[in-house]
Amino acid sequence: MKMHNFNSGPSILPQEVLNQAAEAVLNFNNIGLSLLEIGHRTSWFQDVLDESRSLIKELMQLGEEHEALYLHGGATTQFMQVPMNLLDDGETAAYCDNGIWGSKAIKEAKLFGNVNVVASSKDKNHTYINKGFEIPATSKYLHYTTNNTVEGTQWHALPETNVPLVADMSSDIFSRNMPFAKHSLIYAGAQKNMGAAGVTLVVVKKDVLGKIKRAIPPIMDYRIHIENGSLLNTPPVFAVYVSLLTLRWIKKEGGLAEMEKRAKERAEYLYNALDSLPLFVPTVNKEDRSFMNAVFVMQRPELEQPFLDECKKNGMVGVKGHRSVGGLRVSMYNAMPMDSVKAFVELMTEFNNKNL
Amino acid sequence: MKMHNFNSGPSILPQEVLNQAAEAVLNFNNIGLSLLEIGHRTSWFQDVLDESRSLIKELMQLGEEHEALYLHGGATTQFMQVPMNLLDDGETAAYCDNGIWGSKAIKEAKLFGNVNVVASSKDKNHTYINKGFEIPATSKYLHYTTNNTVEGTQWHALPETNVPLVADMSSDIFSRNMPFAKHSLIYAGAQKNMGAAGVTLVVVKKDVLGKIKRAIPPIMDYRIHIENGSLLNTPPVFAVYVSLLTLRWIKKEGGLAEMEKRAKERAEYLYNALDSLPLFVPTVNKEDRSFMNAVFVMQRPELEQPFLDECKKNGMVGVKGHRSVGGLRVSMYNAMPMDSVKAFVELMTEFNNKNL
Repeated sequence: MKMHNFNSGPSILPQEVLNQAAEAVLNFNNIGLSLLEIGHRTSWFQDVLDESRSLIKELMQLGEEHEALYLHGGATTQFMQVPMNLLDDGETAAYCDNGIWGSKAIKEAKLFGNVNVVASSKDKNHTYINKGFEIPATSKYLHYTTNNTVEGTQWHALPETNVPLVADMSSDIFSRNMPFAKHSLIYAGAQKNMGAAGVTLVVVKKDVLGKIKRAIPPIMDYRIHIENGSLLNTPPVFAVYVSLLTLRWIKKEGGLAEMEKRAKERAEYLYNALDSLPLFVPTVNKEDRSFMNAVFVMQRPELEQPFLDECKKNGMVGVKGHRSVGGLRVSMYNAMPMDSVKAFVELMTEFNNKNL
Repeated sequence: MKMHNFNSGPSILPQEVLNQAAEAVLNFNNIGLSLLEIGHRTSWFQDVLDESRSLIKELMQLGEEHEALYLHGGATTQFMQVPMNLLDDGETAAYCDNGIWGSKAIKEAKLFGNVNVVASSKDKNHTYINKGFEIPATSKYLHYTTNNTVEGTQWHALPETNVPLVADMSSDIFSRNMPFAKHSLIYAGAQKNMGAAGVTLVVVKKDVLGKIKRAIPPIMDYRIHIENGSLLNTPPVFAVYVSLLTLRWIKKEGGLAEMEKRAKERAEYLYNALDSLPLFVPTVNKEDRSFMNAVFVMQRPELEQPFLDECKKNGMVGVKGHRSVGGLRVSMYNAMPMDSVKAFVELMTEFNNKNL
């Protein structure tokens, strides 16, 4: 049976990327060795790193002033690493609290300086994105989460401010065009549109670094990673390579404009169904809906499990909501074929008509 | 041509591990999805984690008081994380300086407390392991590197002390039986005997934690990783799985006793040749020689490049010494077949006889 993979992360990847990754585990570029068995300082791997970091900058339309780094530790490490590098004791950073990940970032930043929560959607269970809030011009930076994987909201316009922008783009990076160059720092854990779990992308504008007094451990210091070209220590070689394969696929398919077009088509198709089927109730403010993760509940909660059972029977995985919010969630990342969305809508429609 | 892989890391892995890893990238356990596409909180991945952590404890003969964690960031992150968790401001830890990695660990520890270098082999270019040195009983812990990948030395007996032992075992873990339970903390980056790069093993005795006043960022706090069963954030799923495959292979082949037997056989065969061929000169104190990484130079340095060219012609990769020390190095990790060592010795002998 063909599986329909709605996992929120780790999540669906293009089949050709999986085929190429499997091949590289057996015989990398036909050199007679596995990708897992070659030194990270060989020209073989240097080529992977170079091509990959150059593709990132090309797709994001970034110039010389931005550096792309592959680091360890996931976005959760960035919750600590960002303030460790950018926020001195006594200084204040502005943070937006629009969901579980933003809240975690806030908690960690407080270990390094003052945090001013300039926007929060907590009053309505994070079902919307704040607009028109004040950001003091003295803020060291503004931190926000472009897409809230768990709550199903997404920023469809940049926060308006002149302070340096820092964005956690883990769950919608490379899914749309954005004014990337306007950001001082962008980070993303790589388990959605960017490849396999185990590597983190950090894009940083060099002029934002070196402005604090704290001593930073080398492995946490962005400047040292820049100096070492993402090779301070052994990188997560396989995850970096899968990221390269995924970036190549994105470019070949038409780049971020095409990814955005597909994401909108999938999301519109799904949200239209959610809006028209009485049994399924989307929970998020219409204009803030995520194109990546659609979150909804059943009008009659007792039907949730029977519906999930139907999904399972039809080879649809990953439809359960995050353990912290419950309900249902369908994730539709770059590699998600429209056919899977159509199959899911068909199942919802059938279930709706049978149980209404 | 069959390749002989003497890479120091990332390095040779068993062929059946590579085959199984490639298969999992296409179709994990025959579930119809790739290992890269499944959630880390599914029972599928939980089973991987559980089996893997239990195998680690079984192979290392550890009881309830030790926890095995899979973390991000490589051993280099542990250089920071160990003192961050164990060493308070004003306290002193004892460190052994026996090579490049130990020196780096020392440098990072100084950011968190005082470092007392109780042993150093720097006077002789790290070509030996110190013995019979003093370790003050007031030291918070003693840190040492069991195998020096770059310099080719290895501790063949434990340092004698009653203070808590902390060991970086990155390059010889799972290659021999050791009194693992006597250690309070063991860490190892996983690019040698433990699987694919991108995951770090930390084995920690719980009673050593929670004894400092510093606030530790959650992603760096061993206690929080223990509470979360290595699932605080998305783990490097693929690297964890390759580690499981490698551990299964070690157990099936006969466990650490068998790995040790094979390592000794390989090392003896190689060092015997090095001791008898005048053109090749081992640089390390005989009794401290590493069973994993044999370091040597050419009696006539101008022959180094011609010899490396011969290696290349014969499909032997990874023979060049580390960029920081030069010379030659042959790494012989668990998966290295005796045939590769024999082929290398044959080539050395031929080269010796032709150029003497």
